[in-house]
Amino acid sequence: MIKVHLKNNNTKEVNLGTTLFDLAKNLGGSLYKDVCAAKVDGELKDIKSPIEKECSVEFLTFDSEEGRKTYWHTTAHILAQAVCRLYPNAKYAIGPAIDEGFYYDFDMEETINEEDFEKIEAEMKKIIDENFSVDIIRTTEKEAVDIMNKRNQPYKIELIEKHKNDKSLILRKQGEFIDLCGGSHMMSTGKIKAFKLLSRAGAYWKGDSKNKMLTRIYGISFPKKSMLEEYLQVLQDRKLRDHRKIGKDLKLFMTHPLVGSGLPIYLPDGATIRRNLERYIQDKEIELGYKHVYTPSVATTDLYKISGHWDHYKDDMFPVMKVDTEEFVLRPMNCPHHMLIYKSELRSYRDLPIRIGELAHDFRYENSGAVCGLERVRQMCQNDAHLFVRPEQIKEEVGNVLKLIFDVWKNDFGFDKFDIRLSLRDKENKEKYIDNDEMWETAENQLRDILQELKIDFYEAKGEAAFYGPKIDIQIKSALMHDVTIPTCQLDFALPKRFDLKYVGKDGQEHMPIVIHRAVLGSSDRFISFLLEETKGNLPIWLAPEQVRILPLNESMTEFAENLKKEMISAGIQRVTANLCNEKIGYKIREAQLSKIPYMVILGNKELESGKISVRSCVKGDLGLMDKDEFINMILNDIKNKK
Amino acid sequence: MIKVHLKNNNTKEVNLGTTLFDLAKNLGGSLYKDVCAAKVDGELKDIKSPIEKECSVEFLTFDSEEGRKTYWHTTAHILAQAVCRLYPNAKYAIGPAIDEGFYYDFDMEETINEEDFEKIEAEMKKIIDENFSVDIIRTTEKEAVDIMNKRNQPYKIELIEKHKNDKSLILRKQGEFIDLCGGSHMMSTGKIKAFKLLSRAGAYWKGDSKNKMLTRIYGISFPKKSMLEEYLQVLQDRKLRDHRKIGKDLKLFMTHPLVGSGLPIYLPDGATIRRNLERYIQDKEIELGYKHVYTPSVATTDLYKISGHWDHYKDDMFPVMKVDTEEFVLRPMNCPHHMLIYKSELRSYRDLPIRIGELAHDFRYENSGAVCGLERVRQMCQNDAHLFVRPEQIKEEVGNVLKLIFDVWKNDFGFDKFDIRLSLRDKENKEKYIDNDEMWETAENQLRDILQELKIDFYEAKGEAAFYGPKIDIQIKSALMHDVTIPTCQLDFALPKRFDLKYVGKDGQEHMPIVIHRAVLGSSDRFISFLLEETKGNLPIWLAPEQVRILPLNESMTEFAENLKKEMISAGIQRVTANLCNEKIGYKIREAQLSKIPYMVILGNKELESGKISVRSCVKGDLGLMDKDEFINMILNDIKNKK
Repeated sequence: MIKVHLKNNNTKEVNLGTTLFDLAKNLGGSLYKDVCAAKVDGELKDIKSPIEKECSVEFLTFDSEEGRKTYWHTTAHILAQAVCRLYPNAKYAIGPAIDEGFYYDFDMEETINEEDFEKIEAEMKKIIDENFSVDIIRTTEKEAVDIMNKRNQPYKIELIEKHKNDKSLILRKQGEFIDLCGGSHMMSTGKIKAFKLLSRAGAYWKGDSKNKMLTRIYGISFPKKSMLEEYLQVLQDRKLRDHRKIGKDLKLFMTHPLVGSGLPIYLPDGATIRRNLERYIQDKEIELGYKHVYTPSVATTDLYKISGHWDHYKDDMFPVMKVDTEEFVLRPMNCPHHMLIYKSELRSYRDLPIRIGELAHDFRYENSGAVCGLERVRQMCQNDAHLFVRPEQIKEEVGNVLKLIFDVWKNDFGFDKFDIRLSLRDKENKEKYIDNDEMWETAENQLRDILQELKIDFYEAKGEAAFYGPKIDIQIKSALMHDVTIPTCQLDFALPKRFDLKYVGKDGQEHMPIVIHRAVLGSSDRFISFLLEETKGNLPIWLAPEQVRILPLNESMTEFAENLKKEMISAGIQRVTANLCNEKIGYKIREAQLSKIPYMVILGNKELESGKISVRSCVKGDLGLMDKDEFINMILNDIKNKK
Repeated sequence: MIKVHLKNNNTKEVNLGTTLFDLAKNLGGSLYKDVCAAKVDGELKDIKSPIEKECSVEFLTFDSEEGRKTYWHTTAHILAQAVCRLYPNAKYAIGPAIDEGFYYDFDMEETINEEDFEKIEAEMKKIIDENFSVDIIRTTEKEAVDIMNKRNQPYKIELIEKHKNDKSLILRKQGEFIDLCGGSHMMSTGKIKAFKLLSRAGAYWKGDSKNKMLTRIYGISFPKKSMLEEYLQVLQDRKLRDHRKIGKDLKLFMTHPLVGSGLPIYLPDGATIRRNLERYIQDKEIELGYKHVYTPSVATTDLYKISGHWDHYKDDMFPVMKVDTEEFVLRPMNCPHHMLIYKSELRSYRDLPIRIGELAHDFRYENSGAVCGLERVRQMCQNDAHLFVRPEQIKEEVGNVLKLIFDVWKNDFGFDKFDIRLSLRDKENKEKYIDNDEMWETAENQLRDILQELKIDFYEAKGEAAFYGPKIDIQIKSALMHDVTIPTCQLDFALPKRFDLKYVGKDGQEHMPIVIHRAVLGSSDRFISFLLEETKGNLPIWLAPEQVRILPLNESMTEFAENLKKEMISAGIQRVTANLCNEKIGYKIREAQLSKIPYMVILGNKELESGKISVRSCVKGDLGLMDKDEFINMILNDIKNKK
């Protein structure tokens, strides 16, 4: 009998050689049904592995990342087995679990398309029903090569040769199928309850474009059918929310190879969203005492040598441009420019806080494979600001920043799920942080105080501060249930030092201000991509490129439509159009609906006679007849209240 | 007797050898007094030169550029003579006339400062009173070197050696002073009536920093004392209007070597001007049916190869940045980006005209010596637009552009002196222009028609069209009497061809649109520099960074001031401040005056009792007591009407 340590300090005695699966069964409940794999003394093991000494055991179900990956990886093997049955000449390469599901790469004579998925899925279903045990075969390199040679699997032989110095090699066998594989696996193929193949793509062997292009098949699997259905729904939703698709459908932005990757062009309607968004945040900040500036998109490399970006951030910057005796670079961020503005005058304690804001064009080198729509770009427009404060002003000023962030995100955009983290330094590892004990103490305390005072729900994370100061990170739960970090509020004790910033205190002496970096919307580009994803393109009316579209039933209504349009515009609804095309009203409505115009006004004889207008909301459908002024006031109110 | 041909087909017979001066005297009137030089058969001559054969003669007075330069150049010689008298070891280098006045460069042991000017001017006055004849000495290289060697003038010797292959060298002698000089000169030193030395600077011999730094003295001279006085007044005015000085005094913008030359940073108050200006023009354009877009500041070099900029404009661009497989460049202009936007959709004749506008960030390489404040910069924000029209729409669309330009410049900014040129091609030199006879004909006629129809005073200039199309150039007379070209309207038949732009006509066939490039404000930067120069920093209230400043007499008025400020802001005057400092009211007024705040509101006991406010205009001075609401309405009206 040996001791096994379980979680929550539980201990269990088992016979030497008892399998992990038997232990799970022994523990009672449904664990044995749900378990995917286990960690023995921290090492991931197949669930059918025997317990060989006193150890700690942690069982992993589909709820854990490693459990899920075991489940998905096993499904990948089933896919490979099915493909080999259907296409006997297929050579299988690698088949890992990924963040969502799995893939397997094949080298095959036949072209496989998504139409072939049904056939492959049917074969996989058979393999699952056959419920093959997934067995470990420990072998030598030579034996392994022999086995794979017999099966004519050159990719596996190439992989085995990479492992030729290992003491023993591990193969997996399920039915007639043998694979080279070291990871953890489910007990048997029958454990896979619900699965689906999702897509195919080309992929180079070892990711190297000099190698052969293989056929990659992606799939997903779940222990319950309902989970699969839910996931497919999410996938569907994700497609509907894909900002690149929405951007294309609504003609919001485009890219062009002559301009370059990661450099979107805002088409008129996208530009309308951006312009209104940028004016909105700029006006709000100015009202709150921010001073907006314009600073150039380039600077000399010397500026970034002083700021420290050159040492730490150079690889994320565009290449240097030599002009006469100067070395210019497109700026990755605008903090250094703002430091120079602060430094341009002698500042007194009475002048602080100084809040320098900008809609700043910044440029970052992103791998051309990583750029994505408006979400990840090489040129962005940042809603950025730097606040220069005295140490004792931290609390109030951070409080103002938090109030602004919530005003924008909660009140104006209606988000309500936030995850707020106060990131502090780890006092045990002081060498990781800029050396200024007193400043850290006062700053961290003030941040904690203001979060409590504002009754904000937050948690503290030791060791998560930046090296230059503590910060408050705000995560927003997206419609696709991702955690998105856009607004932020970071203290910086380092930049003021690097730029030797000063203010004259009440005592007549020079002191160093603290810099607060803060972002509310982040970059306009990223924010718009996020907003499109959240709203599926149904933007709030104050941002909608076209707010109202008037749809006359026929030509006799043209004048009525034109006059109504003028009236609405002069009442203050800026973006009203009239569709005077000679099309059927049904077609016009469908078109407006697809263009996601918040409101349609339909003009027919009924309307002309009653003196009222017929209103249709893109989201809520028909709103019936309304008094014209009532409608105009409703829209003006919605715009004003950012509905 | 020989014949001399004068202007207006007049002919005069004179004895061979008669001097030009005697001829002038002979012609009667005051010409002989005013004449500076003459052109004989097109060649510039001293006025004392003899007439040696039948020829045409044109007399030049101070009114002509060459006359003025003769006058100024002669004054430069007098300066050199005076310096040599006062500083016997001075070596004189070169002393040309320039656009305004003259300079002379000296290599001397002594340091000359502006305090020494009085002494030098007194010596110059003596030389003028001595009225030396300015004589020509024709000599050989050897003799010339001998003369200059005796006088210990190494710079002149170096210059003589450059001319050693000339048949004869020309020296000039006035009194004891001899110079090497080929230009034209006045009769005698006594001809110079009024002069002034203006400034001194260092200048390298031959402009090469490897050579010795010489002392350069600048001066100016006029035939009348009143003209000198007027000119000095202009210089004074120019200093007051120097936008770099205004920008610095009012803290509107700054530059910093760490950012780089030609890259101004807009400080908060300058940014307020720019933001309001840019929103103003953007809103105006959008109202007129322009579609504003945002396009990236960079593009691949391929884009500029297609547009043709790469061949013709490369030297004015920043260096290429290689990123992965792409070659990026900061864009010098945004036309190509807008062509891609046009091309992103299939366009029908019904869609035209399409007006794509942008506040576009463009980048141009300017020599670091050429950059100047906001006037000439390396990064600019252009108020740019491209109109895509059908050939028959040229007239109407150009008419709309002209109306917009005049609405902005005349109605909103109050400029009234325009010089409008219709620049046409030269039909005799068709090879200089893009080949499309029909298009040139219809376009030029439509431009002429619309100018006439709008009753715009214009003149036609053959051969002044761009190679790609005719244009309308609009020059504005500046306060400093310069002609400034900012708004423009140019047709382009070439870009649509290079980008293969199309629209589907009524006939169902593909046709090529015409592009109209147009600028209203030009670049924000250039426009602001111009506006500061025109207004001496007294901006119209709708653009003023601070519109109203409230000045309470003492602390007891603080609340009154604060409330008034709030009231004004909520009434819609956005930029109101209150100066609550503990300073004397006189000091506060002076400060507001220097900051060029359009209106000051002074609060004292009198005001508190009467319930009125005391208003002071920065330009007009004290406006007396006013009713609060009356004042607020006045300001709101001024803002609305762009007073």
